[in-house]
Amino acid sequence: MRSLRVFESVSVDGYFVDEGGDMGWAHAGAPDPEFDAWVAKNAGSGGALLFGRKTYQEMAGFWPTPMAAAQMPEVARGMNGAKKYLVSRTLAPTWSNTELLPGPLVEVVRALKAEAGPPLVILGSGSVAAQLGDAGLVDEYQLVIVPVVLGAGRTVFGRRQPLQLTEHRVFRESGKVVLTYVVPR
Amino acid sequence: MRSLRVFESVSVDGYFVDEGGDMGWAHAGAPDPEFDAWVAKNAGSGGALLFGRKTYQEMAGFWPTPMAAAQMPEVARGMNGAKKYLVSRTLAPTWSNTELLPGPLVEVVRALKAEAGPPLVILGSGSVAAQLGDAGLVDEYQLVIVPVVLGAGRTVFGRRQPLQLTEHRVFRESGKVVLTYVVPR
Repeated sequence: MRSLRVFESVSVDGYFVDEGGDMGWAHAGAPDPEFDAWVAKNAGSGGALLFGRKTYQEMAGFWPTPMAAAQMPEVARGMNGAKKYLVSRTLAPTWSNTELLPGPLVEVVRALKAEAGPPLVILGSGSVAAQLGDAGLVDEYQLVIVPVVLGAGRTVFGRRQPLQLTEHRVFRESGKVVLTYVVPR
Repeated sequence: MRSLRVFESVSVDGYFVDEGGDMGWAHAGAPDPEFDAWVAKNAGSGGALLFGRKTYQEMAGFWPTPMAAAQMPEVARGMNGAKKYLVSRTLAPTWSNTELLPGPLVEVVRALKAEAGPPLVILGSGSVAAQLGDAGLVDEYQLVIVPVVLGAGRTVFGRRQPLQLTEHRVFRESGKVVLTYVVPR
């Protein structure tokens, strides 16, 4: 059985995108080389990535480009090299190492989790994460708490459930706080 | 000029009360003497408390009782002894050391902040905190992140604004994380 981790930047008021669907606020604030190094290490940690259509399109349009290779070489290498699953009925994969899963989402992910293989990681696909949380399929949330109040937005969390804090890390330059929680079984 | 701090327990998805208005989830989970000691110390730190009607009624019905004195003697002593402001047009104060401020809220708090005196602290009065946040009158948020997803509820935060992380503390027994942010001016 593979585990499923949701990795997400969230605002202090708990949103992963603002009212207009934007995530740019997550990169605002002071430069923080220590945080960037942590992200780069995290991106190379060997999990398989699981995407919904929208986030896949955005990421597939950035990470394979020379701009990504110049700006964030380590993360780009990790993202391009990783095994990727795209859950979509309409989109054909264009990014390296992508396997298309035509859905329905919950059934597909339940089957994927029953296989042997590296941990599955969801990055930024908030509605996918919320649906899988509701279905009880998320094992771990790794949250980057960004020091901003958005006032309105969308949540990445599903139904009510207790969590268990397992790790934390504070990045002083940017004020970002990474909190890792497991879902108790 | 006095500062205004909002002290609040929030869920991982950013709510201070659940869909039914309940805050009981904030006290669930493993016993944590270290956290209790921190709360007791915090309650005795000499700020003046600012309440809306609803939270005042709840707290005035608990902290002066023998049950509170038996269960949490230090916190009860701090709460009962503290200077308290009640912003309400309808409720008469019944709890020790309370000064009634008939409102309107924003004008009253702006005037109070212009006076000399100890810092003002809002505990749990979420709609009061949100209104004052919107008016730009909150200087600091001290948040206890409780390890639970609520799925739905109400937010204590006002409009969009960047924050600055100043302090953090992690309580391992309960998994509660205290994050303190100031609002940059």
